[in-house]
Amino acid sequence: VKNKFKNSFFSQHGLWLPSQAAVRAMSSPAGPSPPYTTLAISHPAEFVTHVELHRPKKLNAMNKAFWSEMVDCFNEIAGNPECRVVVVSGAGKIFTAGIDLMDMASDILQPEGDDTARVSWNLRKIITKYQETFSVIEKCPKPVVVAVHGSCIGGGVDLITACDIRLCTQDTWFQVKEVDIGLAADVGTLQRLPKVIGSSSLVNELALTARKLYADEAKSSGLVSRVFTDKEAMMAGALEIAGEIAARSPVAVQGTKINLIYARDHSVAEGLDYMANWNMSMLQTQDVMKSAQAAMEKKSPKTIVFSKL
Amino acid sequence: VKNKFKNSFFSQHGLWLPSQAAVRAMSSPAGPSPPYTTLAISHPAEFVTHVELHRPKKLNAMNKAFWSEMVDCFNEIAGNPECRVVVVSGAGKIFTAGIDLMDMASDILQPEGDDTARVSWNLRKIITKYQETFSVIEKCPKPVVVAVHGSCIGGGVDLITACDIRLCTQDTWFQVKEVDIGLAADVGTLQRLPKVIGSSSLVNELALTARKLYADEAKSSGLVSRVFTDKEAMMAGALEIAGEIAARSPVAVQGTKINLIYARDHSVAEGLDYMANWNMSMLQTQDVMKSAQAAMEKKSPKTIVFSKL
Amino acid sequence: VKNKFKNSFFSQHGLWLPSQAAVRAMSSPAGPSPPYTTLAISHPAEFVTHVELHRPKKLNAMNKAFWSEMVDCFNEIAGNPECRVVVVSGAGKIFTAGIDLMDMASDILQPEGDDTARVSWNLRKIITKYQETFSVIEKCPKPVVVAVHGSCIGGGVDLITACDIRLCTQDTWFQVKEVDIGLAADVGTLQRLPKVIGSSSLVNELALTARKLYADEAKSSGLVSRVFTDKEAMMAGALEIAGEIAARSPVAVQGTKINLIYARDHSVAEGLDYMANWNMSMLQTQDVMKSAQAAMEKKSPKTIVFSKL
Amino acid sequence: VKNKFKNSFFSQHGLWLPSQAAVRAMSSPAGPSPPYTTLAISHPAEFVTHVELHRPKKLNAMNKAFWSEMVDCFNEIAGNPECRVVVVSGAGKIFTAGIDLMDMASDILQPEGDDTARVSWNLRKIITKYQETFSVIEKCPKPVVVAVHGSCIGGGVDLITACDIRLCTQDTWFQVKEVDIGLAADVGTLQRLPKVIGSSSLVNELALTARKLYADEAKSSGLVSRVFTDKEAMMAGALEIAGEIAARSPVAVQGTKINLIYARDHSVAEGLDYMANWNMSMLQTQDVMKSAQAAMEKKSPKTIVFSKL
Amino acid sequence: VKNKFKNSFFSQHGLWLPSQAAVRAMSSPAGPSPPYTTLAISHPAEFVTHVELHRPKKLNAMNKAFWSEMVDCFNEIAGNPECRVVVVSGAGKIFTAGIDLMDMASDILQPEGDDTARVSWNLRKIITKYQETFSVIEKCPKPVVVAVHGSCIGGGVDLITACDIRLCTQDTWFQVKEVDIGLAADVGTLQRLPKVIGSSSLVNELALTARKLYADEAKSSGLVSRVFTDKEAMMAGALEIAGEIAARSPVAVQGTKINLIYARDHSVAEGLDYMANWNMSMLQTQDVMKSAQAAMEKKSPKTIVFSKL
Amino acid sequence: VKNKFKNSFFSQHGLWLPSQAAVRAMSSPAGPSPPYTTLAISHPAEFVTHVELHRPKKLNAMNKAFWSEMVDCFNEIAGNPECRVVVVSGAGKIFTAGIDLMDMASDILQPEGDDTARVSWNLRKIITKYQETFSVIEKCPKPVVVAVHGSCIGGGVDLITACDIRLCTQDTWFQVKEVDIGLAADVGTLQRLPKVIGSSSLVNELALTARKLYADEAKSSGLVSRVFTDKEAMMAGALEIAGEIAARSPVAVQGTKINLIYARDHSVAEGLDYMANWNMSMLQTQDVMKSAQAAMEKKSPKTIVFSKL
Repeated sequence: VKNKFKNSFFSQHGLWLPSQAAVRAMSSPAGPSPPYTTLAISHPAEFVTHVELHRPKKLNAMNKAFWSEMVDCFNEIAGNPECRVVVVSGAGKIFTAGIDLMDMASDILQPEGDDTARVSWNLRKIITKYQETFSVIEKCPKPVVVAVHGSCIGGGVDLITACDIRLCTQDTWFQVKEVDIGLAADVGTLQRLPKVIGSSSLVNELALTARKLYADEAKSSGLVSRVFTDKEAMMAGALEIAGEIAARSPVAVQGTKINLIYARDHSVAEGLDYMANWNMSMLQTQDVMKSAQAAMEKKSPKTIVFSKL
Repeated sequence: VKNKFKNSFFSQHGLWLPSQAAVRAMSSPAGPSPPYTTLAISHPAEFVTHVELHRPKKLNAMNKAFWSEMVDCFNEIAGNPECRVVVVSGAGKIFTAGIDLMDMASDILQPEGDDTARVSWNLRKIITKYQETFSVIEKCPKPVVVAVHGSCIGGGVDLITACDIRLCTQDTWFQVKEVDIGLAADVGTLQRLPKVIGSSSLVNELALTARKLYADEAKSSGLVSRVFTDKEAMMAGALEIAGEIAARSPVAVQGTKINLIYARDHSVAEGLDYMANWNMSMLQTQDVMKSAQAAMEKKSPKTIVFSKL
Repeated sequence: VKNKFKNSFFSQHGLWLPSQAAVRAMSSPAGPSPPYTTLAISHPAEFVTHVELHRPKKLNAMNKAFWSEMVDCFNEIAGNPECRVVVVSGAGKIFTAGIDLMDMASDILQPEGDDTARVSWNLRKIITKYQETFSVIEKCPKPVVVAVHGSCIGGGVDLITACDIRLCTQDTWFQVKEVDIGLAADVGTLQRLPKVIGSSSLVNELALTARKLYADEAKSSGLVSRVFTDKEAMMAGALEIAGEIAARSPVAVQGTKINLIYARDHSVAEGLDYMANWNMSMLQTQDVMKSAQAAMEKKSPKTIVFSKL
Repeated sequence: VKNKFKNSFFSQHGLWLPSQAAVRAMSSPAGPSPPYTTLAISHPAEFVTHVELHRPKKLNAMNKAFWSEMVDCFNEIAGNPECRVVVVSGAGKIFTAGIDLMDMASDILQPEGDDTARVSWNLRKIITKYQETFSVIEKCPKPVVVAVHGSCIGGGVDLITACDIRLCTQDTWFQVKEVDIGLAADVGTLQRLPKVIGSSSLVNELALTARKLYADEAKSSGLVSRVFTDKEAMMAGALEIAGEIAARSPVAVQGTKINLIYARDHSVAEGLDYMANWNMSMLQTQDVMKSAQAAMEKKSPKTIVFSKL
Repeated sequence: VKNKFKNSFFSQHGLWLPSQAAVRAMSSPAGPSPPYTTLAISHPAEFVTHVELHRPKKLNAMNKAFWSEMVDCFNEIAGNPECRVVVVSGAGKIFTAGIDLMDMASDILQPEGDDTARVSWNLRKIITKYQETFSVIEKCPKPVVVAVHGSCIGGGVDLITACDIRLCTQDTWFQVKEVDIGLAADVGTLQRLPKVIGSSSLVNELALTARKLYADEAKSSGLVSRVFTDKEAMMAGALEIAGEIAARSPVAVQGTKINLIYARDHSVAEGLDYMANWNMSMLQTQDVMKSAQAAMEKKSPKTIVFSKL
Repeated sequence: VKNKFKNSFFSQHGLWLPSQAAVRAMSSPAGPSPPYTTLAISHPAEFVTHVELHRPKKLNAMNKAFWSEMVDCFNEIAGNPECRVVVVSGAGKIFTAGIDLMDMASDILQPEGDDTARVSWNLRKIITKYQETFSVIEKCPKPVVVAVHGSCIGGGVDLITACDIRLCTQDTWFQVKEVDIGLAADVGTLQRLPKVIGSSSLVNELALTARKLYADEAKSSGLVSRVFTDKEAMMAGALEIAGEIAARSPVAVQGTKINLIYARDHSVAEGLDYMANWNMSMLQTQDVMKSAQAAMEKKSPKTIVFSKL
């Protein structure tokens, strides 16, 4: 195991190496954390929240409960100053099999309404609600690292494209599955995937043919920024990245996430204007002085005590 | 030849393997299909239309006829329910040598007009008309797979960047040629290439120096999503991809294309809103039930009979 | 040394091979060019301007003088018809260590103002002014090739993402450093980096963890379009690319840059409309005829005499 | 009183004349409707909800409770098929005195946070939350008619500009008050007022000088579309307008509101595209046939029974 | 009749007074101009085209033929250099009764399609096609003056909001009728009306209640810029305005229309950029010199001979 | 004269009545203020800057000097904390006759350039520079009140539409003159006028026919927000408005201007987001407390001493 940690990406800093205990703590044998029935929440390290999709017997398929629990969970995280970064992963054999068609069928296949217009009206409400399930990840100002193993199918791709940093294991495949069941993906993949990876030909191929994308092509296309040999190594890596982020000024980190997302959706000029308005107040944080001083004294950011945010 | 097909990308499904006959049918010895003089149209498989640039003696250079025939051709395709996917390729030695300067010179170099303003006015009309030649590919809701061999020069790059999925052979090179003849590319390359591949440094280098881009860099940069050893293998691959697409619900496939293009040009929030409005009616298709049932019964999508769209 | 030039990217044209003398001329032993104190300006070849960051003892750290000299320098370049292309590089051991915190501290850490609103007001002015330092590179219609060696830290990344073509040496690393000193990068990196490379996961990782990005990943992610073995080879390569650009019609080249930047920030439809309005006048240049004629006569663009622009 | 109703705007249809009893029912002597403490809710006519600002002793000043009760109230209304249109008015002497500075002072003047950045962070959350108080009016698809009497100050202007139809009495004045207490209006006035009335000179004058705008200028500038002699006549008029709206197809009415708001914020071309996507399902309502038939039979829309929406 | 012309708006110039013969020529006793069956086309003065809605017995209701004839008509006008300005009016008792429900019912009420998705797909095509009927007016670079008398109902409002200058007679009323037949207006009114008049309260009232708007309120709200006593006076006025426009440089006039429409849909900064790109060529017209010279010599623009455009 | 001041708009506050001496001080018998040759600058009251167009013998026609002096003048004003509000007016008989064609002819009619493209390039630079002359008014965060008398022709309309508050005398007429000299207005009128007044029909009529707009229609259309009997009364009124603005918190006033202009060019949602980012720091001003306290103590804002901004 030591080998796995040795070629750490951050060895240059050497500031954050997760312990094996911490990594092990990221599997949740006790199951979902009440009141959630599909999510297990833990805190493997200071300021780090781990959200584990936890319906392993159902391959973490996304049932009705899941769609609303994610919203509650990330709203809680967004407002919790003890959390500065999130790791998302899946319990069991695979990351997720996507939408739980059986559980969801009534909503999607037999929506209410006295005529087509009213059925459409209700479907629009449902789609909008489900879109929110992943948009909360983006609206949450704390960075979200997602660690994918095994397979990530359909709704799973919608989920991970709303996260900030994507990792996977060598044996992972991804599949934009929706077209296989007769629908255009409508909770985020078609909107975010083209802005997440740099080859529109590949995006189109994946979305139009539902073919599998394997780990190496996921890496070369930029969908994930790192591939790990196995899940344990990946969780350690995820925790290391999360640790690096948690160790830095939350003012700087969360401002960075907010402005990166704004920049994605606006022109450079608009993004710069937004940034200037943002930093005109955020630069007035004690964190700059604390961080600059630590940097000059060659101390690790980990040693700095930042006020809560 | 069998070997070429063996490592099919979709072997996981095993649903669509093009026959050699079908692939062979994609070369058009009879020449252009009347009334077209530059395009040969064929139907190598059910729901698949093949559009072949067919002026091989002129290296498929784009003459005046070509610019308007493309518009007619894709408008016909857009409205034809028998077509669900298009493959575009070039007859003869190369894909295309780009604009046919000799044939076009009068339009571009000696535009009419009594003074500079009027010449400009007329040039604007001409440029706008020529832009439409490739924009029709994008406006056509059926996915377009383009298969490039040999070389793809100048106007050829404008063409392929308006297609959805790009393939090439190992011996292909691409060239944004316009700057070599004293003009900024004005029928699509400068607008679409940066949204098609993920390296702005490379895009700029190509557009500013007119250097050649070879197949391997085309693949690694994401311009194409696959490279094939030779044209025959590529046409088989193109037909396989087309077959995969044609086998799926046209409601799902065409909705996917329309929303992917919308997403490219809008913020994620705007794209999600558009998607919700789209699917509030499109989810009410029988295709969802048919596809879901086939999926549960482990049947290939190919076995489903979808209503025409 | 000859070997370095042999596998020139443009050998297909063979039109532009920089002499060793020209390359050597790009190092500036005499130091900054008055009135500049941080920039050395030279003209290694016809129509090529070389801007060298020149505070080698300070690792080209960006002090107060630098931020305003860049604006003056690029405004001068923008208006100078003798310049058709710019190469930017750094003197000494590394490209740049980024912002000179010592010199800048008063501006950033102790801004004036009687209350928080007034401090914010003044900070906004400062940030906006510093943003302009790199936006001038983008507003300058002449293409800018940046050649990076050693390290490129913090403000250096803001600088290079505003350039058009990025090159580096094998031993270079890049670092989005700002989060390490408690602030969200506010002079361009967060706005431009996501539009410069095609992996949002990687962009987010770099910006949120401040980890180093090495030359090979810089190449595979598309941040740079070429990696060179050492600085001398890179400067020769930069000069060759610059020479290729300088040899072509300035009407075509500068129109290309302006439209590529417009396209980045607009929908394809808006970009095409802008392009049509642009070329309705720009096509009326003698450069088209001159270039077309040279092309037909198989002459190098270098032989054409273009009017000044 | 009869005279007041005689010259009804809709006498051409003659379909909806509110009874005196209905109008009288719109004043709420019983006070706020639990659980609300600042709002009295009633149902003066079928499908019509009346929301009355009800802190008359405090001149309906907007206290902390108000800001969240509005959100709850309009979310309830948005989801209630028994409501098709809303009338908003104020109990007591005036419509509203605006923000209740005493009650709100701690939030605005002494926000929490260990440093300026953290105070700013918290203020941003508060402002965003307060903006939502009026944005819910806009997000609610049922049209909102606001009836203003006496005065409408500060936050009151933010409120009414988020409503769809504005009425006032002859003795009303409006005041964009914020600049008088040292702040730029931040919950909607600066964003919506310029899109609500057609004179930017007047908007700027109002917002920069805090001068009063009287009923006649409110009418001539288009801020209100009708002025009434007194409150009783206005409430009857409001109820008549509400009745007209309630009598029509909710599919048509709510689709109209949603598309009008979309159009305000987008180009005409984008608005038309959105509209086409909207009506491709909404035209498939039985309401069209029912309404067309009634129209042909010269029956009042009031006689049609529409399915709930 | 003379009196009517005396207080001409342009008497300051005195350059263009329509003769009674010209005005009389604008009524078309001969009926529609083949191949049109719903439009009568005439040329009451040099460079002026008159398009008359001509189904007087059907109150100029918009039948199927109308929707496509408008497109053909305005495309012809757009390309015809003999036309510099258009006047649109209606033959018979009123301007138009709006959509011809009887003739259109099959399209709208019984669209084809095997399931809801396919019906929606076809409806979207139909709506988009009908939207184009009025968008051609906007895309036509020649200014369009519309002269409304009697009533302008439903589709009529969609039509006139796409015109550039609106006039009406004292006895005219306007009605956004669509909500009365159970649908949200989908061919332009909801998109253009809010950008055509300056009171959103009034726009909302009209669109949500379908109440009539009479001439005086049409004038005070800015829907029309002039009201005339009767149709004859209005036609003379329309012809006078058209004459003023026709007498000026078509380069200036058409550039003005194009840029005004662009400005409506973009920010001021984007509009200015577009304008600069436009005029960099259009200023190079002889018309500037010709017009300036005429102005200095106090000659009427009417005396200038402009080259065709 | 006293009568003129009596029915002051602000008599409700009674806080700011300009003295006759102050009003008189606004005419500049001494001529332009060096280094300006076309502008006379004075300070008629505390924090109020008066900029007078001062080439009365040339009817304040805009010559070359004017176009650059405006930029210098407003840049100075923008940075000068002693100025909180600006009044612009014209010396002599009329406000301005617009562009000084004689002085500008060489720039516009005989631009340099070896071919059409190069002439266009240079014209674009010139147009962009001239656009800046009026955009500086908008970029200056201090509100600008413009007081127009006599006539305001051509470039004058471009100027006043960039100001914040527009006043005129009873005898004023406005004219969008450009079309009369063969060009589309290119320094702001076509972009700003449609966003300044609420009738697109009127805007189009003015821009396409160059007819005069008189004071009463200027008022009813909202171009000006007030009309005065004569220039003296107007200057008093302008000074009173300016005084009202100058007496209020510069943080509130300038934030209001900046956000109003942002709102004009963005959707309501974007505007609200911008506003929240703005006020998260600006609310932390002492001005809120000072202003609130004065308001509670019924003191005039004039008595408050605000820190400089």
